[in-house]
Amino acid sequence: MNASPILRTILWALALGPLAPLPAPHPSAPPIYGFSPAHAAAQRALEVQLDAALHPEDQRAWMERLAARPHPVGSPWGKENALWMAGLFRSWGYDTRIEEFRVLFPTPRKRRLEMVAPTAWTATLAEPPLAEDRTSGQTAEQLPVYHAFSADGDVTGEIVYVNFGVPADYAELARYGIDVRGKIVLARYGGAYRGIKPKLAAEHGAIGCLLFTDPHEDGYFQGDPYPAGGWRPETAAQRGSVSDPTLYSGDPLTPGVGATPDAKRLPREEARTIARIPVLPLSWGDALPLLRALGGPVAPVEWRGALPVPYHLGPGPARVHLELASDWNLVPAYDVIARLAGGERPEEWVLRGNHHDAWVNGASDPVSGMIAVLAEAKAVGELARSGWRPKRTILYAAWDGEEPGLLGSVEWAETHAAELREHLVAYLNSDGNARGFFYASGVPSLTTLAGEASRDVTDPETGASAAARLRASLLLYGSPREQKRAHDGQPLPLQRLGTGTDYTPFLSFLGVAALDISYGGEEEYGVYHSIYDSVDHFNRFVDPGFRYGVTLAQTSGRMVLRLADADVLPFDFVPYAETLGQAVQELQQRTAGMREEATETNRRRAERTYELADDPRHPLLPPPAQESVPALDFAPLEKAVARLTGSAQAYAAALNRAAAAGLALPAGAPAKLDRILLQAERALTRPEGLPGRPWYRHLIFGPVTSTGGMKTLPGIREAIEQRRWAEAADQISAAARAIEAFAREVDRGVGLLAPGR
Amino acid sequence: MNASPILRTILWALALGPLAPLPAPHPSAPPIYGFSPAHAAAQRALEVQLDAALHPEDQRAWMERLAARPHPVGSPWGKENALWMAGLFRSWGYDTRIEEFRVLFPTPRKRRLEMVAPTAWTATLAEPPLAEDRTSGQTAEQLPVYHAFSADGDVTGEIVYVNFGVPADYAELARYGIDVRGKIVLARYGGAYRGIKPKLAAEHGAIGCLLFTDPHEDGYFQGDPYPAGGWRPETAAQRGSVSDPTLYSGDPLTPGVGATPDAKRLPREEARTIARIPVLPLSWGDALPLLRALGGPVAPVEWRGALPVPYHLGPGPARVHLELASDWNLVPAYDVIARLAGGERPEEWVLRGNHHDAWVNGASDPVSGMIAVLAEAKAVGELARSGWRPKRTILYAAWDGEEPGLLGSVEWAETHAAELREHLVAYLNSDGNARGFFYASGVPSLTTLAGEASRDVTDPETGASAAARLRASLLLYGSPREQKRAHDGQPLPLQRLGTGTDYTPFLSFLGVAALDISYGGEEEYGVYHSIYDSVDHFNRFVDPGFRYGVTLAQTSGRMVLRLADADVLPFDFVPYAETLGQAVQELQQRTAGMREEATETNRRRAERTYELADDPRHPLLPPPAQESVPALDFAPLEKAVARLTGSAQAYAAALNRAAAAGLALPAGAPAKLDRILLQAERALTRPEGLPGRPWYRHLIFGPVTSTGGMKTLPGIREAIEQRRWAEAADQISAAARAIEAFAREVDRGVGLLAPGR
Repeated sequence: MNASPILRTILWALALGPLAPLPAPHPSAPPIYGFSPAHAAAQRALEVQLDAALHPEDQRAWMERLAARPHPVGSPWGKENALWMAGLFRSWGYDTRIEEFRVLFPTPRKRRLEMVAPTAWTATLAEPPLAEDRTSGQTAEQLPVYHAFSADGDVTGEIVYVNFGVPADYAELARYGIDVRGKIVLARYGGAYRGIKPKLAAEHGAIGCLLFTDPHEDGYFQGDPYPAGGWRPETAAQRGSVSDPTLYSGDPLTPGVGATPDAKRLPREEARTIARIPVLPLSWGDALPLLRALGGPVAPVEWRGALPVPYHLGPGPARVHLELASDWNLVPAYDVIARLAGGERPEEWVLRGNHHDAWVNGASDPVSGMIAVLAEAKAVGELARSGWRPKRTILYAAWDGEEPGLLGSVEWAETHAAELREHLVAYLNSDGNARGFFYASGVPSLTTLAGEASRDVTDPETGASAAARLRASLLLYGSPREQKRAHDGQPLPLQRLGTGTDYTPFLSFLGVAALDISYGGEEEYGVYHSIYDSVDHFNRFVDPGFRYGVTLAQTSGRMVLRLADADVLPFDFVPYAETLGQAVQELQQRTAGMREEATETNRRRAERTYELADDPRHPLLPPPAQESVPALDFAPLEKAVARLTGSAQAYAAALNRAAAAGLALPAGAPAKLDRILLQAERALTRPEGLPGRPWYRHLIFGPVTSTGGMKTLPGIREAIEQRRWAEAADQISAAARAIEAFAREVDRGVGLLAPGR
Repeated sequence: MNASPILRTILWALALGPLAPLPAPHPSAPPIYGFSPAHAAAQRALEVQLDAALHPEDQRAWMERLAARPHPVGSPWGKENALWMAGLFRSWGYDTRIEEFRVLFPTPRKRRLEMVAPTAWTATLAEPPLAEDRTSGQTAEQLPVYHAFSADGDVTGEIVYVNFGVPADYAELARYGIDVRGKIVLARYGGAYRGIKPKLAAEHGAIGCLLFTDPHEDGYFQGDPYPAGGWRPETAAQRGSVSDPTLYSGDPLTPGVGATPDAKRLPREEARTIARIPVLPLSWGDALPLLRALGGPVAPVEWRGALPVPYHLGPGPARVHLELASDWNLVPAYDVIARLAGGERPEEWVLRGNHHDAWVNGASDPVSGMIAVLAEAKAVGELARSGWRPKRTILYAAWDGEEPGLLGSVEWAETHAAELREHLVAYLNSDGNARGFFYASGVPSLTTLAGEASRDVTDPETGASAAARLRASLLLYGSPREQKRAHDGQPLPLQRLGTGTDYTPFLSFLGVAALDISYGGEEEYGVYHSIYDSVDHFNRFVDPGFRYGVTLAQTSGRMVLRLADADVLPFDFVPYAETLGQAVQELQQRTAGMREEATETNRRRAERTYELADDPRHPLLPPPAQESVPALDFAPLEKAVARLTGSAQAYAAALNRAAAAGLALPAGAPAKLDRILLQAERALTRPEGLPGRPWYRHLIFGPVTSTGGMKTLPGIREAIEQRRWAEAADQISAAARAIEAFAREVDRGVGLLAPGR
């Protein structure tokens, strides 16, 4: 059959008729971006079929199975899960393979933390089983409370409380005359990615690092602890990787290349992402005796958490002995990759994934997201068996080893880098799911895709669309900018990307448009990375009845199907130009703010303002004198963004006109246009990457080294924040050139949509 | 001798020469407002003598004596203290008398609080003695933990946690579908004056009220609890009056008239300021079991304190039995009034005071302030004995019965209302003192007086002026407006007046310019109204060495002497006009904000925004529909303020010119001018007072009934907040007329300073 894609879909929808009658297209159904009106109607019919194939009971059963036993990377149950999921995909008609990598995954051999002064005390470092939680007693298979990629070590020193342990906190400590050289820092979780904290502590001379969960951020301050409520109990600690994700992601021994069995590996001591000092996570029950034993100044107000003691800074008199040793094993990681080949443009790949490994049982993280991917894949498989076939190829992935550093996704992306850069349209990630509001973060060109999908699914709690719920929430609780946009009825921007999940290699290393989605905000989720992240917890406090598991599958299913079937790939560049415009403005304001702050600080130092405002019984040192901030020329960037804005608007107008005319493009044009759109994001990368971090090739989104947070224009931002002015100017040029190149791609798209205009 | 005041002061200063040589006036010494340059130089010399007569050891000895035993109103030690202070004043040459009133002062006969469900538990209601605190064991003389003017009662009911118990909190509770009818509310201290909380609770139908001290506001969240540090320990509760101060102050039985022995008294049940339900204060140790036993929804984030439990709203299952009964005795109150008659204008009185009664030993509250008044009076007495005499009369007052409702000051002011309205220039209050930064709040016409005094005293910790320290502190930590003024070097405005201390009758009932001053901000003061407010606490955590006790005496001594000796009374009307201008702008913004909020709330209700943003498992009701806010004509007020601004500037210019010319005014003019200035503040009052509250006659400053907070333009503000639009318009007219009248007085002053201009 050689029907046009639109005709083909309509024929297929008609073929389904007896099974599920095709609803008449709503006369005023809103358009779908990238689809002609006729094709959009057929697509809606397809999506009705998709929804009909989604069953919460599937997800319940799969969660019971996947989260039945602890399943970190390298574990027997992790392998069982991979094999079992591969079987599922095959049974649904996917061409499925398991790809195996050999990755470094340290597990603890020795863990000891004891206070040696002013009193003797030994930390429990244990999460006790609960009668109310069926799987919490699987102690033989649980990884204990620890941080993967901590250094081995045996250190003794006084404690200093460093708040979140971010750069501003060390600057504040300096005002108290406190440094951490030779000390063991005690930091609470929050404020930055966990892996940053031991890095910064070591840079400041600390010999050890303890990360505790303060109930202010994660515990009884939020609500009733588990098992009475869903919040973190006194004994629960947060496992996690403390490798530095800002240099590169994935296996520390194989940066930039796949960790295949025969890959060339760095010696461990040369792996720069592994923490340089011993690091250990603590529950608040294990942190409280340490905090209580601290002396020295009372911490600044913002540093005080919810534990019932005055928070002191130290150093000492609390002094601890910390001893940690790991087995540094290479373990197998099993990625499951399932393929449904496209009928018309099989060389264009749409990828959807979630990881399957967990720190322990991981009902919420990651299983709640994994089962939504499975549900979607099963439903799409049913569509395919009914005669429909996607225009483009759809891939589903279940990644292993995400928890210790995105091992499965990164090694796969590195192994297949060349073909993925060539073929991958977009990567759509999730990493768990809960109950509540639609959340989407990603590259701005996918804003319209995400917005329309959330517009077209029904929130199970309210009967409104997911988009309407999100808009209502932002109107009441959003940032001022979000409130204004919600109030004015403008399209809602995506959230900014975070760090530390599986879209990173696709966006940052490959330059592929990526998106991360989930539902949440109403769950009671205080069991992250603990033994209590269990099916029992999930069923009571996260998504009882799996209603949002179905909604996530409906939402991402629409996005995958639209990416796979669109007449024109649904990239929208107007939000990209807007985001970049805001980012440039922010950086200009930041620079101006730094300039004013330098002037004001130096003036206040000269006028003794700090001394006069100070309490001599609790003295603070004045902040150090600041070098003045030179003028920085943002003009190249402003010019590039202005050009992109024009190109994006021209593209949007051309696509609108073409869609209204039924998207009847000249022969060959659609494929050429797809090629341009698929590749456009690559223009925003450069092979040498960010300064000192060649793995991070994307110039618009990337982590800053000081917090690990994903930021816009990270190269420029970091150079400014570190006061490397020449580098800032270089990075402005590089980003401006990339944006100009991106705009040229968009212009080429305009040329294909509106030849001769 | 009939020398001019300036000459007289110079002669006196010369007379002191042999004892303490007169320092040469600093060639660039800044001017003193209200003084000619020559007189200013002499005044500075006088102030050097004042400083020389201030000795920290005096204050140490007096504190030991006054705080040696518990001394609330009606107690034996309170009477002893009054008699002893009267003796001191007499020994320093003052014409001294004790004025006695008979005031209602309930003390507890029965106090019982027990939880009857879900578990049985009885509150301790006790503050145990500490070995580290000498006077904490004087249990026989201590008033127990209680609230004066609580209703007697015996009630049993479920608990509802109401946060601070202010109107916004009840509005929030309504969104949870929770009301307090038939319930006992549990409120934390903070957010509003204590006496407001049972009033609002009763208005909402509660049958009892428990006020606890949350360590977030007052306890370990701030620092180490006493005796390790100075912050509130687990067992310390906050005694206090819960009479409603927004209707009238002073003895509840004698509103508007002095509580002389033969005064006509209301029956107790007609005294509207007495709480209508039983109220009891709790330490956090006594509150924690109740909070822990509460169920129901988790409280909003802002409602959560620092106790180590999730804060639930209830109602119940915690259910308590509260039984309270007082002895409702009339007790004697002893005000000590000491007079130093003025030599030239004895009919113009400058009043300086502090209270002497305490809830228990009261080293900080009130003794630390009282001893600074004594020190000042002793030093001024020495000046007088050396031959100097003030131009105007100086009065020192030690008030009794401030703690249970300003009983001593109010009854004295009411008793002497006619003569005080006639003679009183200003009232300068303090109510304790600590360590740190200069604090002054009061009527804006005294801004320059306070600013110059703080400019002219040296901060004992830094050697800078007190004003320079304050400016530095505001520059770093002030509100945006304060930061800007501090940054730009503009004069610093006074703080806004609070409620609940002895300036209230003078300002609010008499219409006398009033000011409240102290030093503080660096103390560790977590023992307010507890048995631990002791000499031992003070010496370790408040003002060790009494250095700021001396500084306070220097500061208020300068203010009193300048008020007493100035050529022209040092009122400055420019800050008054500025304050009023800001207040009018604020009210306009508030009204516009209410209008926008009404529109937006109604729109959100119509669009189901609240439902869509809500978590159906933890539902919130939408806020009620709001009536739209009509246009309110602020033009009369704007016009009046504009006129006052012009008058104030003309007055300032005329006084400047006159001062430069040596203040050589025509005969008779100075006395006439004084008369105008002394009386000007009365123009801002009206006999019928605020709506429904005739005791509160001042139209510019007064308490709002919903929080007890002192606000500008309270009549207008309250009408707007209560949406009584016709009343708001009336109040705008009344305030505008008062401000016009005030401006006319200022104009008359201009006429006397610059006749014929």
